Amino acid sequence: MTLPNTRTGPCIREVRITPIAIVDPPLLNAAGLHAPYALRTIVELVTEDGISGISEIPGNVATNDALASATHLLTGRDVFQQNTIRQVLTEHFGTENAAQRGLTPWDQRKLVHIFSAVEVACLDIVGKVTNRPVVDLLGGKLRDQVPFSAYLFYKYEGAGGELGFGSDPAAQGWSAARQAAALDPAGIVAQAQAMCAEFGFQSIKLKGGVFDPSDEVAAMFALRDAFGPDRPGGALPLRIDPNALWTVETAIRYGRQLEPILEYLEDPVRGQANMATVRKALKTPLATNMCTTSFDDIPASIALGSEDIILSDHHFWGGLRASMTLAGICDTFGRGLSMHSNSHLGISLAAMVHLGAALPNLTYALDTHYPWQSDEVIKGGRFRFDDGAVAVPTEPGLGVELDHEALARLHQNYLTCGLTERNDEIEMQKVNPGWQFQATRW
Amino acid sequence: MTLPNTRTGPCIREVRITPIAIVDPPLLNAAGLHAPYALRTIVELVTEDGISGISEIPGNVATNDALASATHLLTGRDVFQQNTIRQVLTEHFGTENAAQRGLTPWDQRKLVHIFSAVEVACLDIVGKVTNRPVVDLLGGKLRDQVPFSAYLFYKYEGAGGELGFGSDPAAQGWSAARQAAALDPAGIVAQAQAMCAEFGFQSIKLKGGVFDPSDEVAAMFALRDAFGPDRPGGALPLRIDPNALWTVETAIRYGRQLEPILEYLEDPVRGQANMATVRKALKTPLATNMCTTSFDDIPASIALGSEDIILSDHHFWGGLRASMTLAGICDTFGRGLSMHSNSHLGISLAAMVHLGAALPNLTYALDTHYPWQSDEVIKGGRFRFDDGAVAVPTEPGLGVELDHEALARLHQNYLTCGLTERNDEIEMQKVNPGWQFQATRW
Repeated sequence: MTLPNTRTGPCIREVRITPIAIVDPPLLNAAGLHAPYALRTIVELVTEDGISGISEIPGNVATNDALASATHLLTGRDVFQQNTIRQVLTEHFGTENAAQRGLTPWDQRKLVHIFSAVEVACLDIVGKVTNRPVVDLLGGKLRDQVPFSAYLFYKYEGAGGELGFGSDPAAQGWSAARQAAALDPAGIVAQAQAMCAEFGFQSIKLKGGVFDPSDEVAAMFALRDAFGPDRPGGALPLRIDPNALWTVETAIRYGRQLEPILEYLEDPVRGQANMATVRKALKTPLATNMCTTSFDDIPASIALGSEDIILSDHHFWGGLRASMTLAGICDTFGRGLSMHSNSHLGISLAAMVHLGAALPNLTYALDTHYPWQSDEVIKGGRFRFDDGAVAVPTEPGLGVELDHEALARLHQNYLTCGLTERNDEIEMQKVNPGWQFQATRW
Repeated sequence: MTLPNTRTGPCIREVRITPIAIVDPPLLNAAGLHAPYALRTIVELVTEDGISGISEIPGNVATNDALASATHLLTGRDVFQQNTIRQVLTEHFGTENAAQRGLTPWDQRKLVHIFSAVEVACLDIVGKVTNRPVVDLLGGKLRDQVPFSAYLFYKYEGAGGELGFGSDPAAQGWSAARQAAALDPAGIVAQAQAMCAEFGFQSIKLKGGVFDPSDEVAAMFALRDAFGPDRPGGALPLRIDPNALWTVETAIRYGRQLEPILEYLEDPVRGQANMATVRKALKTPLATNMCTTSFDDIPASIALGSEDIILSDHHFWGGLRASMTLAGICDTFGRGLSMHSNSHLGISLAAMVHLGAALPNLTYALDTHYPWQSDEVIKGGRFRFDDGAVAVPTEPGLGVELDHEALARLHQNYLTCGLTERNDEIEMQKVNPGWQFQATRW
């Protein structure tokens, strides 16, 4: 019954896995504190003809080891055969516990990250050999610019990297603001003003779950005062993400206070059942990247009515094609769609932008941590934002090329920084001994 | 905010719409009787560089006129920009009543057929310019051969076409059996034996909704006797499709009788609520291409639990990418997937095969009317079936080329046959005056 495939495309000769560490400021969140470096892994697939495709995923030694254990399953495979590659990797890793993303704001699953890494790099190669940008492999672009949201964090003073909690006194503008502490409403507003001045964002999100909800709600109302309807251009949409740390009672109480000013409330509580309870009590739409984070989670989300908006993330959902399927599911069931991020560089951003440009139902500006990063691993330097949006690359593939000198330098950072996985709790304990992560705090 | 698209692909210069009429035997079904000719429409998109992409959809003068009214929206567009083309066509035609497929076994919606025609022809061109078969534009093939099911019909004696109810006495083998009457269990078994001998099908479906359910159930048990577990290779899976003509009581009564021998029961009753009631009463999986036939129908199908298996059809669901999304939805919600067909030629079959090869969750052999057709519109003649399966074309695009001489001849058939839309009720009334379609009959 099995016939040979008589027409083969470019085949993978080599899989290069390079962990890197990138400078990250001391940002606070529900799980603790960002370390001075964030970890990413850069994946390069090289074809037998020497064409390279690249991707970027969250850095974690377990994921890297798992990917390394699967390279023999990838070499020799036609990069067009992504369906087969997905099946082979699924068989290799198994699907047991594949839906268990962990309790932290980042995703601890291996399989979806590895899928994502391989598929995006394959699509980069397919784009190069067909002379088309990746967005055209997803049905073509519906917009030339993809809008992002300002992503505000409570933070300690400090630049991250070698400077740690120190800072560069010569820094100006956003570089200076990026180093400044932001621990109260005034600090958050100042951060928002500097970030919006630099990047032109047209909507604003605050990472919450750090302080008492009343303090975070006060910061949201301070943002409303600073970016309200009296502003030229009108009020900016506002969002807050307590990272599932609130109780149902807290979420309903503060959710009602925030109702007049919120575009959406992201993951106020933990678990779909709690989300459904909060959703019934509030008019504000609920968004999630913690309670419904896999295709396995979707049926219960629909049955319970736990969320209005799914925050896609091609690193979490297993690549760009899977994210298009997620978009179709959201459209079918009347759910909105936006996009989650973790600290990342330009390869992830390029993939996010190609996907964002192809999504028919992109009704919300996407999340990105990109302004918090200062490093870059692609040639030509960092992406530019105009009016908060990134132009869709028009070159073949992802439209970005790996800067191997930068890669070597950032890999050296990885080797010297001593981090092998993200652990915001340990970083927080260095500052506040005895601090402990709580799955529900307020 | 809008930037020019600085990299454009092959653009559509011309849209050719050619209605054709193909010889069809006097097959009986819930809606009446097949006319001597079945109508199809062949669509050719020709790029500015003279590259042509083709597709085939159900023939209907209203669809053809609607497509003709939209050609100005297609010319000048890059064939890679299928997402944009979909949006433009949706705006042009509107989505009002887009989910109303009508009561007959075929689909009377314009928009999805037009989407399908344009998208498949675009993908054919994309495949040609990228030198890849269409399946590789859908993530690559998971199988080299796509399995189909034998599709049995009650029928009057006759060949169709100019012969009408007449027949060619020189016909041999399947050609002779194709002309023979089949109006009782013995006739159905003989038809199945001839069809399986010719095409090697490994599963069997009977189009029901024609005679009293007890007669059709008797035919199914006769098939079980002829293709049961004592057969070399074991029992062939059996299906019956009463095309929604049974009452809930009838479906439960006969569904229980059929339980030991059915792979699935297709559309026993009309409407999702009735399907859900039947599904609760039976162990046999229920399939549908009449009760859940659009993305708009999916949420209620899931909420009600009305079906186990969705019969996809790229002509009904708006193309190949949309069908991949449907497959993702089925996988996500634990629904099976198979494929519906109407009378068709090799262009539709090629598209069905490319899609079938890319589907991760293809657990059932697909439907096809193809054995009932004798005409062909592609170069090189008709597709071959081995062991009931069709080899996935490996040439670029769909891998089939339009035979313009055959097209002209079949278009002439269209002009002379006088049919402009399918109406099986009128055909039946020519034989049985006073016969009327009933949405529920038994």
